[in-house]
Amino acid sequence: MTHVAKPISSAICRSSADNIAVHGLDLTNEILGKVGLGQMAFLEIYGRLPSVQECRVFESLIVALVEHGLTPSVLAARLTYLGAPESFQGAIAAGLSGLGNTFVGSVEGAARMLQESAANAEPVQAAQTIVEGFRTRKAIVPGIGHPIHKDVDPRSERIFAIAREEGFSGAHVRLMRQVAVQASETFGRHLPVNVSGAIGAVASELGLDWRICRGIGVVARSIGLVAHLFEEIRNPLARELWLRADEEAQG
Amino acid sequence: MTHVAKPISSAICRSSADNIAVHGLDLTNEILGKVGLGQMAFLEIYGRLPSVQECRVFESLIVALVEHGLTPSVLAARLTYLGAPESFQGAIAAGLSGLGNTFVGSVEGAARMLQESAANAEPVQAAQTIVEGFRTRKAIVPGIGHPIHKDVDPRSERIFAIAREEGFSGAHVRLMRQVAVQASETFGRHLPVNVSGAIGAVASELGLDWRICRGIGVVARSIGLVAHLFEEIRNPLARELWLRADEEAQG
Amino acid sequence: MTHVAKPISSAICRSSADNIAVHGLDLTNEILGKVGLGQMAFLEIYGRLPSVQECRVFESLIVALVEHGLTPSVLAARLTYLGAPESFQGAIAAGLSGLGNTFVGSVEGAARMLQESAANAEPVQAAQTIVEGFRTRKAIVPGIGHPIHKDVDPRSERIFAIAREEGFSGAHVRLMRQVAVQASETFGRHLPVNVSGAIGAVASELGLDWRICRGIGVVARSIGLVAHLFEEIRNPLARELWLRADEEAQG
Amino acid sequence: MTHVAKPISSAICRSSADNIAVHGLDLTNEILGKVGLGQMAFLEIYGRLPSVQECRVFESLIVALVEHGLTPSVLAARLTYLGAPESFQGAIAAGLSGLGNTFVGSVEGAARMLQESAANAEPVQAAQTIVEGFRTRKAIVPGIGHPIHKDVDPRSERIFAIAREEGFSGAHVRLMRQVAVQASETFGRHLPVNVSGAIGAVASELGLDWRICRGIGVVARSIGLVAHLFEEIRNPLARELWLRADEEAQG
Repeated sequence: MTHVAKPISSAICRSSADNIAVHGLDLTNEILGKVGLGQMAFLEIYGRLPSVQECRVFESLIVALVEHGLTPSVLAARLTYLGAPESFQGAIAAGLSGLGNTFVGSVEGAARMLQESAANAEPVQAAQTIVEGFRTRKAIVPGIGHPIHKDVDPRSERIFAIAREEGFSGAHVRLMRQVAVQASETFGRHLPVNVSGAIGAVASELGLDWRICRGIGVVARSIGLVAHLFEEIRNPLARELWLRADEEAQG
Repeated sequence: MTHVAKPISSAICRSSADNIAVHGLDLTNEILGKVGLGQMAFLEIYGRLPSVQECRVFESLIVALVEHGLTPSVLAARLTYLGAPESFQGAIAAGLSGLGNTFVGSVEGAARMLQESAANAEPVQAAQTIVEGFRTRKAIVPGIGHPIHKDVDPRSERIFAIAREEGFSGAHVRLMRQVAVQASETFGRHLPVNVSGAIGAVASELGLDWRICRGIGVVARSIGLVAHLFEEIRNPLARELWLRADEEAQG
Repeated sequence: MTHVAKPISSAICRSSADNIAVHGLDLTNEILGKVGLGQMAFLEIYGRLPSVQECRVFESLIVALVEHGLTPSVLAARLTYLGAPESFQGAIAAGLSGLGNTFVGSVEGAARMLQESAANAEPVQAAQTIVEGFRTRKAIVPGIGHPIHKDVDPRSERIFAIAREEGFSGAHVRLMRQVAVQASETFGRHLPVNVSGAIGAVASELGLDWRICRGIGVVARSIGLVAHLFEEIRNPLARELWLRADEEAQG
Repeated sequence: MTHVAKPISSAICRSSADNIAVHGLDLTNEILGKVGLGQMAFLEIYGRLPSVQECRVFESLIVALVEHGLTPSVLAARLTYLGAPESFQGAIAAGLSGLGNTFVGSVEGAARMLQESAANAEPVQAAQTIVEGFRTRKAIVPGIGHPIHKDVDPRSERIFAIAREEGFSGAHVRLMRQVAVQASETFGRHLPVNVSGAIGAVASELGLDWRICRGIGVVARSIGLVAHLFEEIRNPLARELWLRADEEAQG
């Protein structure tokens, strides 16, 4: 069976002996020293530079997820570095591999839920349909509730405030809030919008496809993991973590 | 054998029911909406916010490495996504796993070479010692030469210029340039400082420990990989790449 | 919020200054030189050594998935090795990261489908319920159909034959075959049991929990990836793959 | 710069609409049900089936490394699974990423040391040269010494015995033993051959290229990781490990 070849193409980058162009901008002369890291991330993904407003909102979504202490992902990266110090990149890769359904996946889940709802739906009605759907499938509604922040997640409100200040508080944010209200009623306990829900909603306002919303968490945590491996090099904890676990398990 | 337990600690983050603090700064009130992505990365790694000058230089080092077309790392990530679309993070992790000695490792190599040289050494003398050392060990001098940019790598000069503008062009940059001069003489062909060498030198000016210099490339490419996976979702090439390779190998 | 500590324990291994015991068997004296690789894998997972019959069937499931040519997973591993030759393990890890829903996931999917069906269900009825369920959810029925083997997948029949010879052809195999029959009828084209379906069914006969059925593929392909990286070291193709793709994309 | 294309080829596998052949053996008719897992691994890597003797020795090397309790690699895999249960393969990949210089790398190191020594060298002389070389470079001699097994590592002796029984105890094993003797003398304390040294030596007797010796550990541990993830599913410890570490670090 011979397949019919289709061309291999990529529109992101053009490079020649003289230079590299990213979405049409010359790296040396138009990007370096002129474009900040957040702008560059936006350019890569959207194919154009952001407005000042977009950039502030976009950066805040990534910044919010950079650091969260000794998470399972951080511990996995540190343990991997202990075993393979020759491969800094491998330890980061191991840490990122755990950014899945349990943690960062909820950003994706919230964004998907909002983006798949009819664009022009009335929010109260749409939220009822959504919550009912999750309840029927016995699935967890993404983006709401938090084991610690029972009342309100201050990070969520801050992210919503930044989005509002910059003109990115629209139908997706409204629907996310309404889902929280509806779910609280349906399940009989207060379930505020958590940080994943806020990020998923505001990412949707920025037009970020839900299928790459895990990317926000991955980029953010790659920064956090570099910092944690740097600390691991100077003040290691992985060996201690390992020896304690092994000793306890041996009884 | 019972080991003596030592405490497990991390100085990066403090979190409570109410908030998260990163190196002493409150995430909700002092970071979100106020600290850009480059500043946040600097804060994570250095434990303090950068000056405006530091930030511009630091961001340019990461920005320089975000995108380089269909690299082996990008292809590995796209092929992984084809097999496991449920794990966006796994595709990124696969892509980052290849940022090793052949490519991003040269930034680390250059930074290490410079940082291990005596701080107060005379540059011509130090460069001779360095080049002679690599020649004796039959190892490649990191940070110089480029298959395409035979004369000068425009990105290197741009990075050096940004560092100079912001007051971060010192002994490490001088030594890097001198190594290129000395190596050109020793090996009998023009070997300009390449982009890895420039990044390694300027990272050293910023006081970035060589042991985490791969982190610059890892963070940069994690951004690039998100963009490439987004393109892969909309305009896939991995299946074509696979089918062609398999077909050709089958003869 | 202080969590209530629960003990950390693992029942697989006991080690002391003198030895290691795996599920109660002494590694030095009872395992090494006496227990083959397939037996060892069975022992690890099941907690006991297999019978001769179980072992032959179990090994055949893994052996069937070891090699499949230049798959996306193999290409990703080879490309990763090109970038990071210092990390053989990282290249294998990158390759394994792609063994997800598209390929190896179908073994898991088939096993899950069979194991979640009522144990004592009548097969024709059960198969109808299953196929109808997938059709309603617009999901692909796992374990049937093949782009090449339109009539019959010879590997599937061979695996079924081995299972029958050793006394492991029971309700799960019957249901798998019946699902293929039912799906062919429902979708109006011949859909034979493919190799994933056969493995998923026979793994179920062996009592292997569907939640670890991807493990069969992971172990198998880790062997295949070692062989492919060995070939890559001696007769590399990754650089060529990369250069061709990059050149074509540059136009 | 247009590169001159070279063909993409692989000699391991030929597949057609009807079947798959691995190194010339038909998967369906000549391999499945007839070739055990250890034989298959040997076939993949060596390109031919092993003799009975080779197979027993080869399998014992892999079997020896399958299980070692709650290692850092196991903990990393379990923590990754906690975060991304949708990606069983990603948790295995994370675990394997840590099989580097600190642990499994010593097998590679020992094999390399032995294989790079002159084939016809007198062992006492060769061992002196080797140990002196490591001492001068201030590097650790691979394959000797053990934190627990101060006197003798019973697994090493068992592996050596199996190799001897099957006719695979030759110059590499002699040299490995002699290196241990010489290092004990040079460093003034008893340094027996450890399990990595024994595996590296016997792998060399089997003609296994040192550049793929990490592969023995990777294949072995992929089996062990499947078993540990299965235990994690039924009796999880990752969440406890995480909560304890985070709580302790928060003070």
